[in-house]
Amino acid sequence: MGNDLNHQVRLAARPTGLPGPEVWEHTSEPVPEPGEGRFVVRVSHVSLDPAMRGWMNEGKSYAPPVGIGSVMRALGLGEVVASNHPGFAVGDTVTGVLGVQDYVETDGSGLQKVRPTAEVPPERYLALLGMTGMTAWFGLFDVGALKEGETVVVSGAAGAVGSVVGQLAKIRGARVVGIAGGPEKCSWVTGELGFDAAIDYRTENVSQRLRELAPDGVDVYFDNVGGEILDAVLGRLAMHARVVICGAISQYNSDSGMQGPRNYMNLLVYRARMEGFLVGDYVDRWGEAGTELAGWLAEGRIHSREDVVDGTVDDFPEVLLRLFRGENTGKLVLRLRRD
Amino acid sequence: MGNDLNHQVRLAARPTGLPGPEVWEHTSEPVPEPGEGRFVVRVSHVSLDPAMRGWMNEGKSYAPPVGIGSVMRALGLGEVVASNHPGFAVGDTVTGVLGVQDYVETDGSGLQKVRPTAEVPPERYLALLGMTGMTAWFGLFDVGALKEGETVVVSGAAGAVGSVVGQLAKIRGARVVGIAGGPEKCSWVTGELGFDAAIDYRTENVSQRLRELAPDGVDVYFDNVGGEILDAVLGRLAMHARVVICGAISQYNSDSGMQGPRNYMNLLVYRARMEGFLVGDYVDRWGEAGTELAGWLAEGRIHSREDVVDGTVDDFPEVLLRLFRGENTGKLVLRLRRD
Repeated sequence: MGNDLNHQVRLAARPTGLPGPEVWEHTSEPVPEPGEGRFVVRVSHVSLDPAMRGWMNEGKSYAPPVGIGSVMRALGLGEVVASNHPGFAVGDTVTGVLGVQDYVETDGSGLQKVRPTAEVPPERYLALLGMTGMTAWFGLFDVGALKEGETVVVSGAAGAVGSVVGQLAKIRGARVVGIAGGPEKCSWVTGELGFDAAIDYRTENVSQRLRELAPDGVDVYFDNVGGEILDAVLGRLAMHARVVICGAISQYNSDSGMQGPRNYMNLLVYRARMEGFLVGDYVDRWGEAGTELAGWLAEGRIHSREDVVDGTVDDFPEVLLRLFRGENTGKLVLRLRRD
Repeated sequence: MGNDLNHQVRLAARPTGLPGPEVWEHTSEPVPEPGEGRFVVRVSHVSLDPAMRGWMNEGKSYAPPVGIGSVMRALGLGEVVASNHPGFAVGDTVTGVLGVQDYVETDGSGLQKVRPTAEVPPERYLALLGMTGMTAWFGLFDVGALKEGETVVVSGAAGAVGSVVGQLAKIRGARVVGIAGGPEKCSWVTGELGFDAAIDYRTENVSQRLRELAPDGVDVYFDNVGGEILDAVLGRLAMHARVVICGAISQYNSDSGMQGPRNYMNLLVYRARMEGFLVGDYVDRWGEAGTELAGWLAEGRIHSREDVVDGTVDDFPEVLLRLFRGENTGKLVLRLRRD
């Protein structure tokens, strides 16, 4: 690999609020050589996910925090460029946790092989055909237990997961209201994605609009944002509603701690449940969901939009902030060029 | 019924904070005569329940608000003293929604006949053998889906519902930690009721004590109080925990609105669910639960404690406040004497 270097972005300090440049360290080291039974991946795509903000915090959670001085954890996609592993050959494309770096040396644990084509670009395996699509699928169908004819509300509706959730709900025969920030996102979800309605939380009164758009109440709420919007939807539940907790992006960078849902007692009034999940728990069933998603994609019944930013690993800190500023539509991906 | 009068307590205004004397109106009117197909009950016992505070508020909930000027809604027990109803005879004892008044004229809808004995006093039909016991039963076994060997935490542990919940959990083979206010309540639940441990939230650090008492996490939390205690338990969930929302007495008289559970994202971390319920939804199955509760009571495997206050309907406003001051142990009941 000649004079190439492995550029890496490491966590230098735990952020409070939005993670600024001061929390990152940019390092480089020689490109690794594969050990026995191992291989080296050249990373081509880095996934940017709201969950990353949680991984940067200290304390117990579903995944250990990224260590100070460690390469930032990230899902990604790349090509095998050197291999001493019988199951992975040079030229294979793999996806999984690769980190914010140009190269990773690995035994392949947790990585899957994928086959991008002219019709299916590699970044789609980080979006609809990857963990994003799986999250939408299992959250809506398994945790949300969606039934035909129900009313679904999804927040972060123009985001990676939300945009898939709404489309899946339409395929399953639900009525779908998306909540998103700004007129472009709202018209994208109702226009291209076929949601029945959208609420622009930046300019509209969410509670008032929900009264109009979900007059019989909300059967399934898929929550990506938390905060005031969660409370507004809790104020509009249908009997036996299911509130699926996928994320809380409005809260992740708060300086004043998390805001709890003040309207949670509506869970009692409407005999409803609020439930969290992690897509990793469904890994045994990913094949089932992936086959169906790929089929619907091929039939044109569902769209996958990737918001691809070209750059280097050094651009990661700035691209990450787009997520928290609501600047992405669809799945945000950093596609690496080598300078 | 001679010169007797029907004394009544009516809601005169909607309270903010604790309901003081200014929200009540004391009225009296002639004792009613039964219409065709109807009968008159002389109320002997009035049930005092945290839910009453919610019924006093305006706005949509699971039950309509008590109207301004209406007799305050209350569960109770009484004797039929005049009847034109083929199914209810003079001398029958009935329980159901009777209101805070000496007499009620009714067609019997929603009322059940019960048979107090020397061993089972009438007030027990408002406690273990009434809605209180049913609430504990269906909340713990149905919504909480308790399994043998699990760890249960219950707040309001010395209260009407909480004291039954802990005993049911013990019978089912669980480890039980109660949270209550004050050393007497704590030693009552561990001593007489057989809870494994108790936390005095007034003097102990609940989070710290839960770390010690539930080292492997809390499988089922039965919440009667909300607020800081709910947050503390959410910080200590076991994987796939169930949080049963029965009430939120710490919040009902708040001037600053409800406090939402800031730790709700632990529902995601622990793939847990939080669910509310209303015991009225289980009315078809009350017989099943009631038979078993009565059996355990007869066998001495479970205790019912009623905190009986003797007084008149005019004492209702002051007795109600005992609930919100945490002054009752077990089920709070006002036993009516006629002055």
